[in-house]
Amino acid sequence: MTGITIIGTGSMGRAIGTRAVAAGSRIQILDRDRTKARELAEQLGGDILTGTVGDTPDGDIVVLALPFEAAKEVVVSYGDALSGRTVVDITNPVDVSTFDSLVVPPDTSAAETIAGLAADGAAVVKAFNTTFAATLAEGKVAGQPLDVFIAGDSAGARKAVADLVNAMGLHPIDVGPLRRARELEGFQFLMMTLQADPAKQDFNWNTGVKILTPA
Amino acid sequence: MTGITIIGTGSMGRAIGTRAVAAGSRIQILDRDRTKARELAEQLGGDILTGTVGDTPDGDIVVLALPFEAAKEVVVSYGDALSGRTVVDITNPVDVSTFDSLVVPPDTSAAETIAGLAADGAAVVKAFNTTFAATLAEGKVAGQPLDVFIAGDSAGARKAVADLVNAMGLHPIDVGPLRRARELEGFQFLMMTLQADPAKQDFNWNTGVKILTPA
Repeated sequence: MTGITIIGTGSMGRAIGTRAVAAGSRIQILDRDRTKARELAEQLGGDILTGTVGDTPDGDIVVLALPFEAAKEVVVSYGDALSGRTVVDITNPVDVSTFDSLVVPPDTSAAETIAGLAADGAAVVKAFNTTFAATLAEGKVAGQPLDVFIAGDSAGARKAVADLVNAMGLHPIDVGPLRRARELEGFQFLMMTLQADPAKQDFNWNTGVKILTPA
Repeated sequence: MTGITIIGTGSMGRAIGTRAVAAGSRIQILDRDRTKARELAEQLGGDILTGTVGDTPDGDIVVLALPFEAAKEVVVSYGDALSGRTVVDITNPVDVSTFDSLVVPPDTSAAETIAGLAADGAAVVKAFNTTFAATLAEGKVAGQPLDVFIAGDSAGARKAVADLVNAMGLHPIDVGPLRRARELEGFQFLMMTLQADPAKQDFNWNTGVKILTPA
């Protein structure tokens, strides 16, 4: 099993960590605050490496479990240290001032923006942006394993993330090139407007998007 | 039950007609070729009005079961005759020459384009663009009623379509303003790339996108 480094200890870092423990992955957790990394590692259980942002990533797969602005900063600050690794962007860059669009222009995506800032040898992959944290920690909704949509320009990096997702007990769907992140971010933005709508009592940040296939 | 006029007798016209019969709706089918309209009406069964494109729509809800270019032409040719009606755009304006983007710019949508061409008093609604024809005719996938995402700037028109969708035995999801069609069209484009991918054996234009909620 490929090692995974999770940068960030918020709800998504915790959820991805929970799944990574279930997968039996070698795990490293980094946070700006080393204490937070240690606390999350203890809560998740198992033998988890911890450290601060800036430490050399242990994992071949580095998950930026951070908001968009922080993810950009971390990619820039790591520079060449991310070369040769698969860097997973999970962000949904919603303009929270209006909740009516993303902060990235419609002809690009957060994932492509982050890829533009990353070192040449880093393979940026979009994944886990359509899985809400509570649902992801659970791994399923309504008895069905979560779909995890994976976009990236490196087929090898997409495969590495898909293998990890499978090991996590989830269902990977390879959607092709990184620019497909535009559609993934757009759709999840729409999903988020539904969760935030008080008229939609069924939607409480705990739903899952699933492609159903005939039985 | 509100009456529904279906313009177009292709696979989507047939599927929506099938659901409308199941709903017990008053139905009118129009096609450029009156014979095709009559044939579909006979196949669907029941007491269905038929005619040619250009005839006055009988339904309060007019479904453009047409490709994007044809839908634009029909809206322009009808002009004020669509005033006071709910006009449903179902299109997915995929650039089939590349299968890598839509033909509409990323800061708009087919639905908004059609609304821009429609008479002032016509309320354009996006719906049924994420339901493939075979799946829609069936009404469900893997035992689950299909989700039908509905976007439009008129709350009354969205409600009218949602009521129809409910009567069809499907699950309406009101996603708000017509500009949300950007995200709906984008996501369905991504879905279509998956169906068209020979490596994805599970996807054969018969899947359904569903928002799962906790049991």
